[in-house]
Order: sequence, then C-alpha cells, then structure tokens
Amino acid sequence: MTDLLAAHRDRLDAALTAIRTRGYHSAFPESPSPRVYGENAAADGQAAFEAHLGQEYAAGTPGARGTVVTEESPFGIELNVAYPRTVEDGLDELLTAARAGLTGWRDAGIDGRTGVVLEILDRLHKRVFELANAVQHTSGQAFVMAFQAGGAHALDRALEAVAYAHEEMSRYPAEALWEKPAKGEPIRMQKTFTVTGRGVALVIGCNTFPTWNSWPGLFASLVTGNAVVVKPHPLAVLPLAITVDVCREVLTEAGFDPNLVTLAVERAGDGLAKPLATRPEVKLIDFTGGTEFGDWLEQNATQATVFTEKAGVNAVIIDSTDAFKALCGNLAFTLALYSGQMCTTTQNIFVPAGGIETDEGHKTFEEVGAGIAGALGKLLGDDARAVEILGGIVNQAVVNRLELAAQYGEVVLESRAITHPAFPNAVVRTPLLVAIDAQETDVYGSECFGPVSFLVKTADTAEAIEIFGRTVTAGGAMTAGIYSTDAKVLDQAREAALDAGVALSENLTGPVFVNQSAAFSDFHGTGANPAANATYTDGAYVASRFRVIQSRRHV
Amino acid sequence: MTDLLAAHRDRLDAALTAIRTRGYHSAFPESPSPRVYGENAAADGQAAFEAHLGQEYAAGTPGARGTVVTEESPFGIELNVAYPRTVEDGLDELLTAARAGLTGWRDAGIDGRTGVVLEILDRLHKRVFELANAVQHTSGQAFVMAFQAGGAHALDRALEAVAYAHEEMSRYPAEALWEKPAKGEPIRMQKTFTVTGRGVALVIGCNTFPTWNSWPGLFASLVTGNAVVVKPHPLAVLPLAITVDVCREVLTEAGFDPNLVTLAVERAGDGLAKPLATRPEVKLIDFTGGTEFGDWLEQNATQATVFTEKAGVNAVIIDSTDAFKALCGNLAFTLALYSGQMCTTTQNIFVPAGGIETDEGHKTFEEVGAGIAGALGKLLGDDARAVEILGGIVNQAVVNRLELAAQYGEVVLESRAITHPAFPNAVVRTPLLVAIDAQETDVYGSECFGPVSFLVKTADTAEAIEIFGRTVTAGGAMTAGIYSTDAKVLDQAREAALDAGVALSENLTGPVFVNQSAAFSDFHGTGANPAANATYTDGAYVASRFRVIQSRRHV
Repeated sequence: MTDLLAAHRDRLDAALTAIRTRGYHSAFPESPSPRVYGENAAADGQAAFEAHLGQEYAAGTPGARGTVVTEESPFGIELNVAYPRTVEDGLDELLTAARAGLTGWRDAGIDGRTGVVLEILDRLHKRVFELANAVQHTSGQAFVMAFQAGGAHALDRALEAVAYAHEEMSRYPAEALWEKPAKGEPIRMQKTFTVTGRGVALVIGCNTFPTWNSWPGLFASLVTGNAVVVKPHPLAVLPLAITVDVCREVLTEAGFDPNLVTLAVERAGDGLAKPLATRPEVKLIDFTGGTEFGDWLEQNATQATVFTEKAGVNAVIIDSTDAFKALCGNLAFTLALYSGQMCTTTQNIFVPAGGIETDEGHKTFEEVGAGIAGALGKLLGDDARAVEILGGIVNQAVVNRLELAAQYGEVVLESRAITHPAFPNAVVRTPLLVAIDAQETDVYGSECFGPVSFLVKTADTAEAIEIFGRTVTAGGAMTAGIYSTDAKVLDQAREAALDAGVALSENLTGPVFVNQSAAFSDFHGTGANPAANATYTDGAYVASRFRVIQSRRHV
Repeated sequence: MTDLLAAHRDRLDAALTAIRTRGYHSAFPESPSPRVYGENAAADGQAAFEAHLGQEYAAGTPGARGTVVTEESPFGIELNVAYPRTVEDGLDELLTAARAGLTGWRDAGIDGRTGVVLEILDRLHKRVFELANAVQHTSGQAFVMAFQAGGAHALDRALEAVAYAHEEMSRYPAEALWEKPAKGEPIRMQKTFTVTGRGVALVIGCNTFPTWNSWPGLFASLVTGNAVVVKPHPLAVLPLAITVDVCREVLTEAGFDPNLVTLAVERAGDGLAKPLATRPEVKLIDFTGGTEFGDWLEQNATQATVFTEKAGVNAVIIDSTDAFKALCGNLAFTLALYSGQMCTTTQNIFVPAGGIETDEGHKTFEEVGAGIAGALGKLLGDDARAVEILGGIVNQAVVNRLELAAQYGEVVLESRAITHPAFPNAVVRTPLLVAIDAQETDVYGSECFGPVSFLVKTADTAEAIEIFGRTVTAGGAMTAGIYSTDAKVLDQAREAALDAGVALSENLTGPVFVNQSAAFSDFHGTGANPAANATYTDGAYVASRFRVIQSRRHV
C-alpha cells in the first residue's frame, strides 16, 4: 500500500506546496489535444463511453433491488444505461456493507489510504475521455468543457482536497513521548494517536457538474477513513458510476473492501436522499443542488456534518472601465459558457442609470446593455461554434424558467434556439438579457438558474454596492465581480464583498472569467454566505471528516 | 497591536511546537506556591475575590435589564454578586452591539488578534488567584484544584486552542501571485486572502468547570475574528464575569470595541439559552453541559456550527494487574477527586465475576471492590485532608442523585457526609461504590453524574470489553481505562476503544489519572462518540470558526 503512495509522492508533494502558496498549479493537463493524450485517446474514450449505452451497469451495489434507467441526454442521444436501484428497504443492507470495511481502511493509516486514493485519481485520469463523454451527455456541457470541468479540472480539485486532508491528518504525530518534570525522575508516558473516519459519508451529486462537484467531498471523505455512498442525480449517473467503479477496482486490488465506495441510484421521484441522509450511520454529507433541499439537509441531517453548495445571486458591478470592448467580451463569455448553467455564472449585472465612463467615452445604461448583447451576438453568431460554448440545456425545468423570464423586464437580448449540427435533438439556447429596475429585488434577489441575466439599473455605483451586499447577504453568491477605474470604488467593492462573504474578481477583461475558479488557488464558494456552507478547499472542508483517538501508558 | 504579539511571541511559538509534537508542555505554572507566584499573591487574590461579594458587577452588558443574583456557593458562603440581567427582549440590542466591532476586529488581521488574545491570557494569569477563589466558590472545587483546573490548566488549554487557531489561519497566504502558462506571456493574477470571522459566537458555560470548559471555545472564536457572547451557568457566573472583564479591558486598551466580548447572565429558569442560541447572528456555539440540551442545540441551532461536550459513561476495565495496591490507589483518587463531579470521572468499573490475577495473587470480585473501597477509606480517612480532595457538591441535584443510587445494587462503600473544617455550611460527600450485575445496563448505561461509581460484574474480560464498546457507542464517554498484564487483552481494549471512539489510558498506577488530560498532549474528548462532538483541541475545533475571502485581479 505504501508503494502506491511512493508512486504518487511527487504529485502529492507538488499539491501540498500548491495549497500553501495558492499560486498556479495543475496536475492533470486540461487540453484534450492528441499531442497531450495521444492519437487514440479521444476515440478510445468515446468507444468506452458508447459501450455503456443500452447496457446494465454492474455497479455491485449491496441491497439494490432490480435496475432502473433514469438519464436523458441534453444532446438527445439514447443512453439507456440501467443501474442497480437502491430503495429505502435496502438501506440496512447497503449501510452494513459500507461499514464492513471501515476497520481495515482505518488500519491502512494515513499514507496507505492516501496512496490508494491517489491511485484512484490516476486511474480516473486514464479514463478521462470516457468520463468527458459521460459528463457531456448527462450534464449538457459541450465536449471540451466536459473534458476540462468534468475531467482535468475536477481531478485537480479532487487532488487539492486530498492534499488538504493529508496535511490535516498529518498535523498529529502518530506517537508522542510525554515527560513531565517531577521531583526525582520525570513522569513519562508513551502516547499513540490514530486517525479514524467518522463512519459512512454520503455524496449527493448534481445534474450539471456530476464529477467536479462530487469528487472533492468523495475523496476527502474516503482518504480520511470513511466509507462513501455516492447518490448521483438521477439525470447524471454515468460519470459517478464510472467513478465508483474505479474506486472499487483500486480498493479491491489493494486488498480493501470494495464496498467502502458504493453507488446508490434512485428512480427520479423516489425521494431516497431524505431517508438516506438521516440514517444514524451517515456522519458526513456533501451536497450540491438547490437551496431548498440543501437547507433541509442542514436542518434535518443533524447527526451528520453537512457540506452544502446551493443557489445564489452572483453579481457583477459595472462602475467604469478603460477597456469597454474587452469588458463586454469577457462578460459575454461568462453568460454564454454552458448556457449560464454554472453555479458561478453572473446573474445580476449592476449598471448606473446614468451610464458609465469608458475608454470609448461615456456609455449610457442602454449602450452598456447593447455592448454586452453585441458581444454575445458576435460570440454566438455561428451555430457550429456557438454550440461548443453553450452546450445543451440540462433539463426541461431550465427551459421553462427561461421562457418565463422575458416578462420580468425589458428584453435587451432575446434567447434563441439553436439546432446542434451534430445532435439534432439537442436542446440549445442562447442567453437572455433582461433590463430591470433596482427596486425589483423580488425578481433578481433570488436565483433564476439558467441562461438568464439581469441588467439591473441602479441610481449610481454606491447604490449598486449597497444592493450587491444586501442581496448576497440574503441570497448568497458563489461569485462577484467589479469593473472600475477608480481605486476608491474598488476598495468599497472589496469591503462590501468581505462583509457579504463572497470572493471578488476585479476588472476581468482577459482570458480569466468570473465564473471560473482555478484549483489550488481560487477558493470555490466561501462558506460565509447562504450559497454554500463550505469551500473547495480549505482546512474546514477536511478537518471534521475524521477524529483522532489516543491511547497512553507509562513508559 | 503587533507589539502585543511580539511581547508574547515566545509563548505562542512554544505552544505551536507543542501542538505539533504533543509532548509535555505548560506555559502557566500549576503550583500555587508562594515560591512561584510570590508571597502576597494568594492573599491579594483572595481579597480581590472577596471585594466582589455583595457588590454589583459592572459587566457593561448592552441591552441588560436590571440585575440578578444567581449564585450559591457549594462551600456555603454568601456570594450575593449582582450581575446585569440579560432577557430575551434585550437580545437585539446585545447582538447589534456585539456585531458593531466585527469589521475593526477582522481588519486587525491574524497577528493583531492573536496578540490581543495572548495579552488577555496574560492578564487572566495575573488574576489567577482571584479566579481560583471564584471557581472554588461556584463549582465547589477545593482551592488547589480550582487554582489548577480553573486557572493554570485552563490557561494552558486556552493557549492550546489559540495556537491551533493561529496555525489554522496561517495556512493561507495573505497574497498570492498566480501565473498560468499560456502562448506568449503567462496569464498573471494577484490574489488576496482575508480571514474573516463567522459573526457572533456564543459560549454556554457549565457549573463545574466555568473557565476550563469555556475558555478554549471563547478564545478560539475570538482570535478567529468573531464577537463572543458568554452565557455562564447561573450558578457559576463570577469566573466568567472576571474573564469578560479582562477581555473588555484589553480590547479597549488596544483600540477595539469592548462589546466584542459580552456577558449575558440570566436568572435561573429564564431559559435564555434557547432564544439566544437560535438567533441568526449566532454562527458558532460552544456548549458544555447535559446531553439533553446539548442534543437540542445540535438539532435546533442549525444556523450555527455547534461544539458540544455532554454526558457519558466513562469506564475502566480491570482484567489483571501487577500492582494491585497502586491500581486501587490510582482509581480511588480518580473517584474521590472533586467528588467524582468531573466529566472524566470513571463511572463504570468492569470486573470479571471470577476475579482477577494480581501481584498479590488471585483477587475475587469482592476483594477487588474491597481493595478500591479500602484505598478510598485511606485516602479520605482524615476529614481535613479529605475536603481538599473532595471539594463540595456542586448543587442539590447531585445530592439527590447520590441518595437514590445506593438502591441500584449492592453497596460496596457507603457515601458519607463530611463537615468541612473551614466552611461549616459546605456540602461534602465521599464517593459511593455500588456493585451491579452486567445485565443492568439500564442503570449503568447512562450517566449518573456525581460521586457514584458502579463495580460491574461481567462473565469475563471479553464480555467487559464487549459491554464497554456497546455502552460507550450508545452513551458516549470522555475517558476509558484498562488494567491488564496481558498484551493481547491490551490490544483488544485498544481496538475496542478505537471502534467506540474514546481515548484509552492503560495501566495507570502512578501519578497520572484517567480523569486528567494534559493540555497540548492529551485530547479532551474525541468528537467520535456521543459524549462530545468535538475535542480540545484539534484542527476541527478551530477550522470552521472563520472563512477565507478572496479577491483577484490581473497584475
């Protein structure tokens, strides 16, 4: 087992350095180019993905009852993968099996477990093209994005979480000699400290980022000595089925119980998450999804430590700029990427009613809107190119929401449907941009998930900053941005972001976007506002996933 | 402000080293001897304590309504200290005041806050004799114990928590340069990372250890950037009133808002803790006390991160020994110290029905009981000496419980009342020892807080280990011990303790006792069984008390 750690020691050490400095670092190349991954990697990965279609997936889930097909591809292809179906009646069997390997896993020690988990990441990397296809056809992400966000970047985030967990567990010595001065000989005790997991961890996946949002919690819990039950979103099972498969394969090879990681697939509507999340065996929960259920978990799964990422009202404040065209281009890409279906996509763009000063002279409120709309038009003008940015709409609820949103204010840019050249049944939509008055917080003060953004007309920048702080404090946010040439305004925005507990991106006009967070450097979420009670990744994300149990005796 | 850190830098650095090695360390001398603290220290401290009696304590609590007298000394002296009374109607005012200084406190930075908190600990140390008297006359601890557990050791535990918090906050760089390789020039971003507190922290104190159990949470929350509301147990206010006083004094001197630390005293029965603990401003709660209210907090104060220390069924398994007399003496001291009113006192002593092998030959079950009883008799035979170990009974509920307990089984050693030579109205009782059959888990499977221990007759050691694991898993434990000369039995006990999530002391026959945990080395509680969901002190105890908020911009 320690051989596995030795094999991945350099990767771990580089990650440990990265989390201390939080500069640029990446362990898994983000380019799907044949020059990086080899000539056959893409085709082989696609073939491996296609081999799952129409088949029964042998996930080996204890306590499962029959199978269930739950996925529908946003790109309109037939998936028809059948998974073992977990039902409430089978939870005793599932959780008993999950717990069976805990002692052996604990006894593997910090380095033993870390080696196994790093080997799992390496194997997942070897299947990254297969995973990218699976992410694409469940989430609706375009292929390159699925490869990056669902593959390479997700692996980086997972490695970041494993590095934090390894560092956290290593804070405590395995042994200590305690020598208290006394009259005559000192009093001497030998002490041992053993890291033990909390029990069973539950990961509840989401539809849009089945791997990126699940892997940090999954591997943080596994490496700290817990068994993990993975419950995917019914519409995005395959990426996590492959994940669980790889985990079980490596665990078995290394001599551990494969049931330390299990897949629990429910039929949509079965409501499996509530009974599962409140089981006494479940001590850790990682959840990504809607606010309603996230809040429910926080309030009801009180036997567990709960990590949630929920909805928010991400905002960008536009005060002034010395690069108007680049501003519009940068924002347009953010709104367009994955049809605005990222938890980090900007929803509210605050612009002063009187317009802004720019390098192209004064721009009215309407001209700012037109600038962003124009940049979107240019970015998405060619259908074949557009679909590679937009991807597909993840599910029908987003389409419904989009159709309602045009009535909320004055439409600055209409959403249009695009026919995907390669997938005729794909549901593709461009972003809708709606101008709205600042007092309409009922509309823009809560999340309207999907390709919908609001151009919010404020009296001035001071009002924008005030509303920004208020809406983020009340509704949460994963991201925030400010554009200003005025150092004083930047300071005010930074102060407001600190108070509201949200990360701030300033004057992004180049190849970095407010909706993107870089593993090892940018924290994803803060845990300091209602959008998420934790972040990827810091000490708090890993420290309560294990306990240290001590014994002592005289020397 | 950084001057304060410089003044205490060596103390911090030594603590930081100690928590990495978890060997012996102490920053505050535990001996109240005049040779250590000076000729006048004891008399001055007592005079300072006595100066509070019968007076109104000017705690400066915002939103308080009138005053309230709530304390009764277990030693029977008149305290009559009147404190500002906090009522539910005053919570808006209190919490608004508590929050007012948060921004300034955040902006003080990690080192600024750490310096202030270390200065507070230093000032508390200067008042350690006054605090010892206050702890003695509210908790019922005898003076020397009050000085140590309530003064020096409590300061060590507080320092340990501050060291963990400082290390935790320092894991993140204040600034980072992110340089991503790209075609041509790399993409460069400058990033800042700011530690911010969660908001208002609530500390709910207990009757028996008002300082030892409150200080770690109080100072961990304060140093990480939170405001702290301290709600003492109505019967043990003065030690925390002095604590809050010192905090406010140092905060004011250093230019911060004194309302960052406030005292909220309720009239017994007011039920202030529930409305206070569930206020949205309250983001952190530290609680020591009964299981019922601890569980209530965990289940209802879901807007906060809750740290609890509750009840448990501490156990010692006796399998065999090569030092029977020393075993009996060691256990007797544990049962007698502070009349068994420590959350770490052994309640259940498992002994095989067939007796045990010892250095004095075979001992029957009855002879083991007689050995412990005899050691207690010897230890407590002289009243004047006995009261310095026993202290007073903390409140009437303990007396009532003790009086009922004799009927639970066969009395091995009766509890007797002792008249305190110095305090004629003190309520002093010696430990009761009751033999009981293993099947009576209804009796010994839950905590019987006070000077009551059970000699549990098991079929053999294997059954003892099995019941030990089962009762601790169900009922929790702060401590556990094993006596055996058999390496295999020790291994089994260690394994059972790991599975049950409790720290294990092995073959204690010298000057270390199962009920004592040494700061910087022994973890107090584990967070891995129902007796406590956290430990003093590890990373998990501090990591979620703050968040890191980031900003980024292109260079």
